[in-house]
Amino acid sequence: MQKHFGEASVKFSNPPVIVSAAAIVGPKEGEGPLAGCFDEISDDILFGKKTWEQAESELMRRTVALCAEKGKVFMDDVDYIFAGDLLNQSSGSVYGARSFGRPFFGLFGACSAMGMGMSLGAMLIDGGFAQNVIASASSHFCGAEKTFRFPLELGTQRAPTASWTVTGDGAVLISATGSGPKITAATTGGIVDLQQKDVNHMGAAMAPAAADVIAKHFADLQLPHDYYDVVATGDLGRYGHELLINLLQEKNMYLSDRLTDCGTMIYDLETQDVHAGGSGCGCCASVFAGHFMKKLHNGEISRMLLVPTGALHSVVMIQQGESIPGIAHAVAVERSSQ
Amino acid sequence: MQKHFGEASVKFSNPPVIVSAAAIVGPKEGEGPLAGCFDEISDDILFGKKTWEQAESELMRRTVALCAEKGKVFMDDVDYIFAGDLLNQSSGSVYGARSFGRPFFGLFGACSAMGMGMSLGAMLIDGGFAQNVIASASSHFCGAEKTFRFPLELGTQRAPTASWTVTGDGAVLISATGSGPKITAATTGGIVDLQQKDVNHMGAAMAPAAADVIAKHFADLQLPHDYYDVVATGDLGRYGHELLINLLQEKNMYLSDRLTDCGTMIYDLETQDVHAGGSGCGCCASVFAGHFMKKLHNGEISRMLLVPTGALHSVVMIQQGESIPGIAHAVAVERSSQ
Repeated sequence: MQKHFGEASVKFSNPPVIVSAAAIVGPKEGEGPLAGCFDEISDDILFGKKTWEQAESELMRRTVALCAEKGKVFMDDVDYIFAGDLLNQSSGSVYGARSFGRPFFGLFGACSAMGMGMSLGAMLIDGGFAQNVIASASSHFCGAEKTFRFPLELGTQRAPTASWTVTGDGAVLISATGSGPKITAATTGGIVDLQQKDVNHMGAAMAPAAADVIAKHFADLQLPHDYYDVVATGDLGRYGHELLINLLQEKNMYLSDRLTDCGTMIYDLETQDVHAGGSGCGCCASVFAGHFMKKLHNGEISRMLLVPTGALHSVVMIQQGESIPGIAHAVAVERSSQ
Repeated sequence: MQKHFGEASVKFSNPPVIVSAAAIVGPKEGEGPLAGCFDEISDDILFGKKTWEQAESELMRRTVALCAEKGKVFMDDVDYIFAGDLLNQSSGSVYGARSFGRPFFGLFGACSAMGMGMSLGAMLIDGGFAQNVIASASSHFCGAEKTFRFPLELGTQRAPTASWTVTGDGAVLISATGSGPKITAATTGGIVDLQQKDVNHMGAAMAPAAADVIAKHFADLQLPHDYYDVVATGDLGRYGHELLINLLQEKNMYLSDRLTDCGTMIYDLETQDVHAGGSGCGCCASVFAGHFMKKLHNGEISRMLLVPTGALHSVVMIQQGESIPGIAHAVAVERSSQ
């Protein structure tokens, strides 16, 4: 049976099932409009640890463990963990997954990590190599600022186009059998770089990659533009989202109000002082695992395309005059079977 | 057909073929005992670029392009590129793969990256999701020193157990059809951490993970201990290699002189002043793509187990008192078909 379609897409012959999902976030996310959909809101940004990096590891560990628990699977029955984050050397994922001892694939795709993990996890399951896979993506506001921007203590003023890194982790348990929405298809993005060099405008670095992978997904699988109830990118923020609408229009794609962005959803953009909106691997991961999974379960959404987008931003490369390459991956999740 | 075996292993129903391999290295590697097996030895550590990071990207780009060329495949026919390196944000792989525009999965597993790419690539092909996949892993001595240790300009004295990061890239083209050695099985490691905190002794951080994945591989697939002609870890260096022998003996595994380590092979340990030996994602990748692929082709080796090992070392976590977690992945490559 054919599984690879067009330039960059796959369709699953036995679509893997998302049997459970877990999302844990920090205090600021708990004050946002999606507060009610998360499994846990920590009022401690340190999650009981001493450093931001240890906090992110603990957040990841707790979310993955909760995801397995909600899916009624022992950790020893999880065949592979795929995880990514924004810290150098993926420390959030590495130190978080350490205690599990399960086969581990560390991913680097910046905020596209959740798309990578869900795509690869589904391929391993549909390919017969695994029964259960957990995909996780995390980020921590303080750790990300320290890694990519300025010491928090400086209180540096933020640009209007800057986004706010979400403190959160979203994880899904994908299985060969069970009940829940299914991953039916995936499109893997290539690196797209339109020479954007503004480190305060990640949305602009990622929007072209999002447009590219969305267009390829619809073309490869020959889908009508109204096929999905929701096409949710994550996380372009409000300015990147506008750019994406324009870029898709140039490709004659009009997704209208089906198109949304997780970065514009997780915070109240008017009152929470987050400028362009949310970002970070944990943003679309926690919005998908918390918000969209509930809507897929209760039938408000039947089909959605999740498009995690990553700005492959390196401080060192930027200091050398380089641009910020973007990447995005699309994962189709459907309520009914194919 | 069963594909998953035991705790962490898979066997391929239609073993994917390594149809070509390419290895490009820097000047120091070109003075070592394996010089004759590399496709290209650059006498310019900057590979014609202005910075070490740009040099590593160029090295990666050139090696991947050469690998496709040697395999007589247009880049547009490569379905996925898997790549990893040691720079923060995997910049060597990201900026190297940028010009190809192909579907891209960035990996983080430190020096285990080649094992991740070959395992995942083979799973995607055997699962029916791809025809051609390229797996690449690179490292650059100067970029790695800058990222993890001291400014080179300091001329800091190196500890006897320290290894020398290889400037090199190894890439393989894995296909569903064609001629060449085949990837027959793979075992994916979990994170193993025995609380080693000496940043000048990565071999000690990785040896327990190597022992773990090797033992699981033989147990999961019920193989006799003399099944492989060569079991090549990469890159423990000479002290890590000795630790591995001891750890395997504790598990009643005596692989004797079948067991070798790519880090002890790429340099002349007596004359090249590399202390424990070679390391870096590019070490075992270039030794496999250059040296072992030739031996698999000419029949000197019929079956080998490649075990790339990674020290998931984060400068920030070490500064916070953390240990260095290790990971290793095993990939079985056989000359004859199953």
